[in-house]
Amino acid sequence: MDEGVTRIGVSLPKNLLDEFDSIIITRGYSSRSEAIRDAIRNYIVEYKWLEKEEGEIVGVLTVLYNHHFKGTSDAIISLQHDFGDIITTTLHVHLSDENCLEMIIVKGDMAKIKKLVDKITTIKGVSNARLITAIREQS
Amino acid sequence: MDEGVTRIGVSLPKNLLDEFDSIIITRGYSSRSEAIRDAIRNYIVEYKWLEKEEGEIVGVLTVLYNHHFKGTSDAIISLQHDFGDIITTTLHVHLSDENCLEMIIVKGDMAKIKKLVDKITTIKGVSNARLITAIREQS
Amino acid sequence: MDEGVTRIGVSLPKNLLDEFDSIIITRGYSSRSEAIRDAIRNYIVEYKWLEKEEGEIVGVLTVLYNHHFKGTSDAIISLQHDFGDIITTTLHVHLSDENCLEMIIVKGDMAKIKKLVDKITTIKGVSNARLITAIREQS
Amino acid sequence: MDEGVTRIGVSLPKNLLDEFDSIIITRGYSSRSEAIRDAIRNYIVEYKWLEKEEGEIVGVLTVLYNHHFKGTSDAIISLQHDFGDIITTTLHVHLSDENCLEMIIVKGDMAKIKKLVDKITTIKGVSNARLITAIREQS
Repeated sequence: MDEGVTRIGVSLPKNLLDEFDSIIITRGYSSRSEAIRDAIRNYIVEYKWLEKEEGEIVGVLTVLYNHHFKGTSDAIISLQHDFGDIITTTLHVHLSDENCLEMIIVKGDMAKIKKLVDKITTIKGVSNARLITAIREQS
Repeated sequence: MDEGVTRIGVSLPKNLLDEFDSIIITRGYSSRSEAIRDAIRNYIVEYKWLEKEEGEIVGVLTVLYNHHFKGTSDAIISLQHDFGDIITTTLHVHLSDENCLEMIIVKGDMAKIKKLVDKITTIKGVSNARLITAIREQS
Repeated sequence: MDEGVTRIGVSLPKNLLDEFDSIIITRGYSSRSEAIRDAIRNYIVEYKWLEKEEGEIVGVLTVLYNHHFKGTSDAIISLQHDFGDIITTTLHVHLSDENCLEMIIVKGDMAKIKKLVDKITTIKGVSNARLITAIREQS
Repeated sequence: MDEGVTRIGVSLPKNLLDEFDSIIITRGYSSRSEAIRDAIRNYIVEYKWLEKEEGEIVGVLTVLYNHHFKGTSDAIISLQHDFGDIITTTLHVHLSDENCLEMIIVKGDMAKIKKLVDKITTIKGVSNARLITAIREQS
């Protein structure tokens, strides 16, 4: 449908575009537009839960961090105690000499979970924090 | 740097763009270009491990699936037995009445892990499969 | 205190006693009585929670089973769905070619958890099922 | 078989015996001797792995501890880093306000695993540490 398609312009740093092109060749895309649509779809799936204002959910918060940063582990554990009513279980995986992955099972009010995600993201040494919930794949 | 920036054009379905705009307002972006750059960065982080050809890694494969599909659980468990030399531990989380999240801790040769990801992605009922490894955050 | 000690007699199969003696030498006990007192203490710690009649608890149910028994995995998974309101997370560990360990995180009413333990114990192929809760170490 | 049975005498503190009697009534035993045989069997199953001198095993080390003891969490985490070659994954469960359960998945040489169990047992605040492996149920 012609009316259903919009053309937009985007400015990208050259090195970011190079890296992106390299990945999409590896993944076997035929066009860059198609890959960008895919990136945008992933992005929507990733953050859609943010639009859900309230209600009880179950999810897994994955937190990648460098355990050589002094105090990062402590800060993550201490935060989990503060949010003890929505956290019962945590899985910890040693990915490499430097990197740890903490998977926090959360169950409870969405507003409280958002607050936890916000706080964990600001801890020094945390390189990535993302929430996986059932809402994600509805899009 | 002017030489460092490239401007590209992308065609997007109208409803995809609307959903994207709605999310970036929630997340507080000032411009759509900035949000697309972010989506591309996430995408690179997500798939960078695919470019690593060989070597031993530790990672977590997260698999979202609908457990009401007949045979999906069985197929996922049976696949894990086939790859028993790279899988020791699996965490299973019931996200909702319909959706389950299986987090498979993998440790071993990259080529074999890629094969597992490929196979799991094709199982009916699996809506999302992604690998989290230490390589990811190096980008 | 003399009044505080009772002497009892116990009949034991010879081979059971031999195995017990072999273990207590490995563990460095000075007397068989001391080791039996220890075995009784462990036993009390293990089953004390059974005397707690009601109330909400958090615990981990560890289930050892042989995954070569046809239908055992299915029965364990299906049971977990029946008790979905007290089970959110399960960790699965492949111990050996034959043996799997399923660790089920339970949170909820004691009476319901007891029912789950009873049902899981009767599944064919399950060789051991035990509940670990915070009550255990109070003895 | 008459020749196969031995009768031994055991001295027990009165309060230990009372607690034991109370549990065996709850569990429905017909005789105290029967319950003591069961306690001894459990004990053998629990510690049989100690007699295995060498070789590679997979197991789960469950550690119950009071997280209000200052330094206990830190000591447990630090120990896991020291034994990084046999530990990839750890599951942490908040049992109650005071008590935590850490389940450490171990894979590697038996001698090294024994050393880890020994060290973890001596950490202040740890009330119980036990290893679950596939060897256990062979008895």
